[in-house]
Formats: sequence, C-alpha cells, structure tokens
Amino acid sequence: MCGIVGYIGGSQAAPILLDGLAKLEYRGYDSAGVAVSSLDENGNNTIEVVKAKGRLQILREMTDNGSSVPGFCGIGHTRWATHGEPSAINSHPHFEKDKRVVLVHNGIIENYLELKDRLIKKGYEFVSQTDTEVLVHLLDNYYKGDPIEAITKVMVRVQGSYALGILFQDRPGEIYAVRKDSPLIVGTSKEGNLIASDVPAILKYTREVYYIQNMEIVQMSDKEIKFYNIDREEIQKELTKVEWDTEAAEKGGYEHFMLKEIYEQPKAVRDTISPRIKDGKVVIEELNMSDEEIKAISRIQIVACGSAYHVGISAKYVLEEVAKIPVDVDFASEFRYRNPILDNNALVIIISQSGETADSLAALREAQARGLKVLGIVNVVGSSIAREADNVMYTWAGPEISVATTKAYSTQLSAVYLISILFGQIRGTVTKEAYKNMVKEIQKLPEKIQKILEEKERIQWFANKFASSHDIFFIGRGLDYATCLEGSLKLKEISYIHSEAYAAGELKHGTISLIEKDILVVGVATQEQLYGKLVSNIVEVKSRGAYVMGLTTYGNYAMEDTADFTVYVPKTMSCFMTSLAVIPLQLLAYYVSVAKGLDVDKPRNLAKSVTVE
Amino acid sequence: MCGIVGYIGGSQAAPILLDGLAKLEYRGYDSAGVAVSSLDENGNNTIEVVKAKGRLQILREMTDNGSSVPGFCGIGHTRWATHGEPSAINSHPHFEKDKRVVLVHNGIIENYLELKDRLIKKGYEFVSQTDTEVLVHLLDNYYKGDPIEAITKVMVRVQGSYALGILFQDRPGEIYAVRKDSPLIVGTSKEGNLIASDVPAILKYTREVYYIQNMEIVQMSDKEIKFYNIDREEIQKELTKVEWDTEAAEKGGYEHFMLKEIYEQPKAVRDTISPRIKDGKVVIEELNMSDEEIKAISRIQIVACGSAYHVGISAKYVLEEVAKIPVDVDFASEFRYRNPILDNNALVIIISQSGETADSLAALREAQARGLKVLGIVNVVGSSIAREADNVMYTWAGPEISVATTKAYSTQLSAVYLISILFGQIRGTVTKEAYKNMVKEIQKLPEKIQKILEEKERIQWFANKFASSHDIFFIGRGLDYATCLEGSLKLKEISYIHSEAYAAGELKHGTISLIEKDILVVGVATQEQLYGKLVSNIVEVKSRGAYVMGLTTYGNYAMEDTADFTVYVPKTMSCFMTSLAVIPLQLLAYYVSVAKGLDVDKPRNLAKSVTVE
Repeated sequence: MCGIVGYIGGSQAAPILLDGLAKLEYRGYDSAGVAVSSLDENGNNTIEVVKAKGRLQILREMTDNGSSVPGFCGIGHTRWATHGEPSAINSHPHFEKDKRVVLVHNGIIENYLELKDRLIKKGYEFVSQTDTEVLVHLLDNYYKGDPIEAITKVMVRVQGSYALGILFQDRPGEIYAVRKDSPLIVGTSKEGNLIASDVPAILKYTREVYYIQNMEIVQMSDKEIKFYNIDREEIQKELTKVEWDTEAAEKGGYEHFMLKEIYEQPKAVRDTISPRIKDGKVVIEELNMSDEEIKAISRIQIVACGSAYHVGISAKYVLEEVAKIPVDVDFASEFRYRNPILDNNALVIIISQSGETADSLAALREAQARGLKVLGIVNVVGSSIAREADNVMYTWAGPEISVATTKAYSTQLSAVYLISILFGQIRGTVTKEAYKNMVKEIQKLPEKIQKILEEKERIQWFANKFASSHDIFFIGRGLDYATCLEGSLKLKEISYIHSEAYAAGELKHGTISLIEKDILVVGVATQEQLYGKLVSNIVEVKSRGAYVMGLTTYGNYAMEDTADFTVYVPKTMSCFMTSLAVIPLQLLAYYVSVAKGLDVDKPRNLAKSVTVE
Repeated sequence: MCGIVGYIGGSQAAPILLDGLAKLEYRGYDSAGVAVSSLDENGNNTIEVVKAKGRLQILREMTDNGSSVPGFCGIGHTRWATHGEPSAINSHPHFEKDKRVVLVHNGIIENYLELKDRLIKKGYEFVSQTDTEVLVHLLDNYYKGDPIEAITKVMVRVQGSYALGILFQDRPGEIYAVRKDSPLIVGTSKEGNLIASDVPAILKYTREVYYIQNMEIVQMSDKEIKFYNIDREEIQKELTKVEWDTEAAEKGGYEHFMLKEIYEQPKAVRDTISPRIKDGKVVIEELNMSDEEIKAISRIQIVACGSAYHVGISAKYVLEEVAKIPVDVDFASEFRYRNPILDNNALVIIISQSGETADSLAALREAQARGLKVLGIVNVVGSSIAREADNVMYTWAGPEISVATTKAYSTQLSAVYLISILFGQIRGTVTKEAYKNMVKEIQKLPEKIQKILEEKERIQWFANKFASSHDIFFIGRGLDYATCLEGSLKLKEISYIHSEAYAAGELKHGTISLIEKDILVVGVATQEQLYGKLVSNIVEVKSRGAYVMGLTTYGNYAMEDTADFTVYVPKTMSCFMTSLAVIPLQLLAYYVSVAKGLDVDKPRNLAKSVTVE
C-alpha cells in the first residue's frame, strides 16, 4: 500500500502518473512503479511496466520523465512495504507473467497465504513476497472476458482491505478500480479521467471527483466512467467538488497529520489484528516459534524507546497477567550499556515504529551477541531492525508522518495483545473461555476506538481551557499508569507543557508537594480492581487544590462526584484498556497544541526516527 | 542512642533531668529513663533507676514529675532504638545487677558481640539486647576504685561511637562522662553542673558550656569539673558561651534539620558501614543467611517507595554488576496490586526509613504470603517492617527529622553496597583483589562525603541563581540516572520546582521538546564508561539553549568546555558513585528551597512517614 494514481485521456499517461505520484511523496514510500498500455504497430495492446526500489527520481530517470513510455492509459503506485521487503520485484504494479492482468493495490489481503496455496496448486507462479500478487492471479483465474464479473468474484474471495487500479490486456483504453476499507477517488477533467488513493494526486488536473464507497467498482475510459456494485448492477454516483487546497488535501482534509493519524487508528488497529485471527484463533505465522519454543520461554525482555517503551510497560502487565511470563522492560539506551543479566531462555522483544532507532538496534545486536532470539515489532518493512531480528511481527499502521506517534503506538499495543493471547493459550495459562473472550474483545477494539473519536469536541473544549497550563500531572495505577506515561509524553512532545506521569501511590512520596491550586491532574481509572484506590488519590490532590480530569469507563459515573471533568471510554477487558484510554489523551495533547498555535506535526527539537544515539 | 542529660547540684535532680529530656523530645525517641543517686539513712549511696517504653509523659507519671525520686545527682536518656527493640529493658540507663555502675549511652558499639561473649565467659549476665550493656559490664570489670582508669581501659577496648554519662555507686555526688564520635557538652551554672548530648537540654539553666572533644573524659561534682585525656592526664578546657536561641540549639546551630542531617551523613554512613567490616571482611550477622542460601538466590526483588525506591534503582545496578544477581525494582504501591510473578528462589528486599510505610508493609506481607523470604533495610528499630521481615539490616542513620530524607537515603545505599559486596564474595563473582578494593573504598566514603560538604558555598551561590526556575531537568546514564532520580525528587519535595529526571538517552524520544533557552539541565556524569555519551547529551540540550550544570569527578575537567557550571566530587569505584554524586544535589535542593524562603523541613502536603496508602 501507499499511493495509487491512474490516468486515461488525450495526453501521454506516464508523465501524468509520475506527476501524480510525486504529489503523494509526502506520505513516505520505498519504491514506485507505473504500467501503461498502448497499442503496438500490429494493433495489439501491450502493457509496459517500469518499477524500481527507491525514490521516484529513479523512475523518472529510467523513463526520461515518463516520455519514453508510450500510451495514454496507465496506473502508477508508490509502495510502503508491508508484506515483503522494499525491492523492485515487490513493488507495484504487479502482473501475471504474460501481463494479461496488471494492477496496483493499497491495503492488506489477510487470507493471501491460503489463496496463494490454492493458486500455486492451479499452476500459478509467484515471483514476489507480497500479498498483492494473489490478486493478480486470482483475477486472471476468474477472468473470462468480463472484468466486472472477475472483479466481483475476487471481492467475495479475499479478506482484508484494498483499493485497486487494474489494467486488462484485452481491454485497451480502460481502467478498472475497486475498493474496500482503503480510500479511492475518481476525478474527471477535460484532459482525461483519473483514479487516485488521495486527493493531492489529481488536484492539478481537476477538483471534480467521485468518492468511491466500499465494495464499489469503477470502469473508466477516456469517454465515460461507470460504477457497479458487487451484484454487477450499474449505480449512479454524485460528482463532488473538492474545496481543499494542496496542503489540506495532503492531510485528507484534516488540519494536521497527527489528527489524521489519530483518526486512522481504528483502521490501523484492525489491519494489525484482523489478519492474525483465523477461525476464532490467534495465528501469528511470522513468529516462527513452535509451541515447544513458546513454552520454553523463561522471561521476556522488552527493549524500546519513547512511546514504544510505554507499549513495553503495558506489555509487562498484559503478558504477566495473561501468559504468566515475567517481563522486564528497559530503555534501549540503558540496556545496551548496562551489561544486563539475561536468562538463557529469555525472549527479547524490540519495539520500534521506524525499525531504525539507533539505540534499539544496538540493543538487538547486544541481545543476539548473547545468543538470545530477538522478535522485532516493527512498522517499517525491511528496516534495519526488521532485517536483523530473528523474527519480525509487523504492525500494519501504514506510514506515520506526524512526529508524535499515535497509530503506530496503537498497533504496537495490538501486536502485544496478540502475542499475549497466543502465548497464554499455548502455555495453558488462559482457560478456553477466557481465550474465546479475548479473541472476541480484541476484535471489537477498532469500533470502540471509533466511538471515542466521535466525542472529540468535548476534549477539544476542555483542552482550550488548559492550554496555558505550565504543569500537568497524570496519575494511574497498574495498567493505567502505563497509559499515563504515554498520555504525558504526547502532551510534552507537542504542547511543550511540562507534564509528568506518576504511579498514583508514589505521588505522596514527594511529588504531591508540587500540587497547588488549579494545577490540572488527569486521573486515569479504567482498572476496576484499582478504581477505588485511584479515586482516593484524586481526593488527595483535589484537597490540595488540583483541578481533576477523570478518565474512566462508562458506568463509573460516581467519578463525577470527585473529578471536575470526567471523560468516559467504552469498557473492554481490563488488560486491553490502554488502547481505549489513550485515545482521549492523544486528543487532549493534540488540541492543547492546536490551541497554543504550535507546529503539531513537527514539534521543536524532535525527529520522527531517532537514528543517532 | 539519642538524648543524654546529667545533673548534679543543689536541686533535686529528677525534675531537672525530665525537663532536659523534654527539650530533646523533638529529635524523636521510643523510650526514656533516669537514674538518680542518693544517700540512704545508713549513708549508703543507692542509685534508683526508672525507665519506660513510650513517651516521657509515662516517666513523669511514674515519678510524679520527678519529685518521687530523691537525690541531687543523676543521668537521663531518651532512646532511639538501634540494637534491640524499643522496650523498658532495652531503654537506658543500663546497669549491672547490683547497680555498681549505671550509665547512659549515645552511639553504637561495633564490637559489642565479641565483647559480650568474653564478658559472659567471665560470668556477667546480660538482660537486654543492646550494644550498650557491654559498656556497663566492661566498666564494672575494670573498675578497681579509680573511675578514670576504668573508663580509659574501656575506651581502648571498644570500637564504635559513644557519648556516655556514668554513675558509680561508690562515688556519690559524681558524674563521669566521655565521648568518641558522638556529641557531648558540659554546662556549668550556679544551680549546678550538667552534661548533655545537645545544647537545648541545658539552655534553661546555662549558656556557659565546655564542648567535649573526642576521647576526652569528664569528672564532675557540684563543686568542680575536671577533664582528662586517655592518658589520664588532666587537661584544661575553655568555657564557651552559647549564643543560640532554643530553636537554633535544636538544630545544632544549623538553620534547618535538613542541613544538619546532610552534615550528619559522614557519621551516619560510617555508623552503618563500619560495624559490618571486621578484619577487612564484610560481615552482616543480622542477614541470617548461610552461604548456601545466598548462593541459591535466583533473583532479587526490591520493593520501596520514594527515595528508598531510588536506592533500589541504584541497588539494581550495583547488585547486578557486583553479585551478578538479576534485580527487579518495584514501587510498593504497584507491587502489592499487580500480582507479580516471583521466582521461588527470589530474595525480597524492602527498603524503608520509618519501617512503617503502608504500601511497603503490604508488599512485605504479599511476598511472605507467597512463601518468599523478606529482608528489611530499615532505620527505625522495632518498626512494623523490622518486626515482620524475616531478617532486618538496620541503617544506623539515627533519627531523621526533616521530611526530605538525606542521611537515611545515604545509609540505605551503604547497606546495599555491603550486601552487594558480601553476595559477590560468597557467590564468587568478585575477585579477591576486587573484594579487597571494594572493602577499602567503601570505608573511604564518609571522608569523601565530608570533603564535598566543605565546598557547599559554591552550590549555594549557584542555587540562588536558579531559585526562580520553573522547570529543571536531571539527565544521567546508568547509575548516574539513579542519582538523577533522587536529585530531582529532593528538589521537587522542598523547592516545589517541577523537576524531572531522565535516562539521558531517552531525552530525544520526546522530552527534549521541553528544552528551551536558559532551562537548567543538570547533567550527571560520574560513570567513566558513559562519560562521553553524557557529554554528547549535554551538547544536545545546550544547542537547544539549556543552561547546564555538569556534575562529574575530579579530573574530568574537560566538562568545563561543555557545561556552564561544573561541580566535582572525589573519585570512588564507579558502583559507589551515587553516594558522592547525590551530595551536591541535596545541597542544591536545600539552598534553592532556602533561597525561595520555603519551609525546608516541612514541605507542604508531605509527611515524614507515609503510613496510609
């Protein structure tokens, strides 16, 4: 996945495709490619595919800015690796060997391994490690001259998310497109018709667009655009005028990337969880660990930095609770230098969004040098940590542009839950009943996150009230403390307010002396068994004059008696609460930063990926 | 030890003794007693001893405010338990069964067990668990009619610290006194002569005092006061006029208890370390663990709160480095509720000054309920944690009055070092050479702390400059990070400045966005192998405008090239560095609080001992 462009019209396609892809460069990508169809001297439609690992500039040089690729109809793609490392062979467009079907894809096909097996038995040959390639062969398999029929047959057989741009060799001058859970638009202009994953790619040519909805299919020539539903019935769609300028378009209409990414969390979490649940069971193939190996784990050592370290703190609670494996969590910068004593049967888990965090990478090497197996939980496919770890579990958050992480953090949590459930099941520390419940509950997280996002205005109002705060404290117990650590860091990063998270029971061993009139204290109390204790801590700070925002689950309405302002999140199993409780805190940080007029996406002094020590 | 008073003159002694002891009540004590000698109708001198556990009020009630105890010559004592629980039998005065010798004692007799053995063999019977009782029998043993001779013989045979007030049955109308490393003064007035451990006890009667120096002996009647040296030669001493008012007198002339206690650290650390080093070997009898048990420890779980938790963080580094035992450290408030997974062969260590910290006590019970052995490191003898722990190692810091701990923290560190060295030796993880070095180095800590204290004015000047700071950051790596945690907490507690400690490598994963022009960052760099890394972190924050105080060891003068202000501490072994590096940070916190005119000893919202959750 990442960026899709398609064009058909009166101009040469390749330069327009390259230009459109360039408008999507801001999102990050690791490789790019275009496919253009043209009729040769014999009247045969040939589709030329040019693709390369690296910057778009390489593709430009290979094609003389597109001019060396003839034809008026084509599709293009910038790839952010998910399945398979960044490479020319894994980049899009993908095609079967005779180029009868050529396509580009955003999204993740969850059941691709199972489909791949079946297709291989039918004689199809696979050349890439991508999930996308199954779509090519599946389409080819079902294609009997009617593209819409083939497309709908594929749609009912694949699970996951997709936006596709497709060329059929025997349908010159036509582009097909379809989507489910990944964005897709169609633009129409005098110069020709376009498809794109995002508005910025087509803004230079038109502001007249059709927003394609889930399960809708597009058939497009230079003259006309038709839409079909999955029953192959033609449907009518309304043309919309895009009012965004380029900058707004890049952010999908959101004011900042951070807010966009906060809103992408339900999808990111679903993309990370859903492919790993098969027939009601957690299956993490990339773990590459036998049941015996999992049973033999004596301890887990988690090493990470920043927000990923906070995921580690949550993981300690969840893994110890669910899988009963003792967990140690270390800052990577400390771990690498402190000569840690490690168990021979320990599993080391390194968590990193970029996969390039220098300290985490050094910690990985240190652990391996001691003969330990390292599992990476990484977002960027093919990154250094992903390459060097013994096994990698990818978080499928997609590219994250805002420096302050939100969706990557949430998907890392999801990954940790999956591992905990799996380990708990294999080690026999969870009952069948509990296992079933956990599998069910984890799948409900995306919609629950969505529900929290829908109530953002109230947080926004509150954030404006406290935007001029100098000091803010977050207090929680148990897993809520882990949530506080992340909530506090978000606020620090982008609002420059000195916030600090405390294990609530520690407050009175010193730090409570900082509490004075009207200081904002955020009390997180989502853990039922600790709820009463946390309310007592809230009473303590209130009696010193603090203004308290309580954060708890629906139902704990008595919080209103104590806190000055209460935010509720839906209930889930207590071990998954961080995923929900962190959302209002992300929004709080975001809106405080906005209210202060700060550079939300690029806070001062910070880099997205810390590749130095 | 704790408070000593003695009186001889024209008035009834007991009321004066009780009154003097009342003036020492502020220091804390757990029991009290008086001994008064008087001639009976037959002309025999009898010494009456009245003592009780609990408040002085009990003693008042037992003696009708002293009036029921006849006699004009007596000694009194308030006890802060060190050896043996608070009880009537352990309280002072102590005496041999015929009351030939009766005495009160402040300080610690280090070789009391060995002396006790010898005295028992000679037929002496011991009734208390105190170290003090050996002094009684030893004096009796050497006493052949010449008190000074007996006293000097005892002096050369005991190791440790002491201030003594002594009555001999056959020397009516005389009080003897002597000191080594514990304070003692003599006051003279028209009403009579007095001895006391501290000025407040006598201020009501006189301001004319002799300050008794180490190894000086006092012989006192209502008429005259004579002084002797250990060679039994009479010496002349100069009378001094005390200018302090009562409040200043309570603080020994220091402006605040905190500063007094900061200055008591060399003694407190020596008192904690020195009795546990015998013939160049670390011996911790109260551990009650066989070599086999020590070798069988699989992990150490440290549980504590506040500053004691920071001792735990240091302990993790030191124990792992020296004894190669993996260590986990938990907040007591988290440990007790998080259902921790504990190794069957783990040793649990609970650290607490008061021994009454509610969360720590609950954690202790939780650990014992799981069948684990608990070692308490506690300052208050006979406190709940001391009583309930399987074994207790006492820190002999003496009573600490300032809410912000300094000397108790330092002695807890010392205890941890001793355990580390002992465990390292028994488990064979330190070479003989290294062991010898460690034993040598740990004994040098008191004088090195003393040296740092002598340079306090520079810190004071600096503290005044930054007293109006709103935010201060402490950064360090490895053991220096543990030091930073404590330095930051001190500042928070008493200056109400929002300070925060960071593992320096983590700063750029978020918090560096808070660094702006003129924000004070304290960079601690005492660990040679991490020095260069920390200097790089200092450069990072400086380039964002921070004002940097560097804290390193003598010799690292290149720090001046980077930091704006540099403080040096003497070198010691890297694993003991926290004990030295924390001193300037205590002084910094203290002087910032003073500069802000705050209530240093009783910061708002805080209690000395947190006996509630």
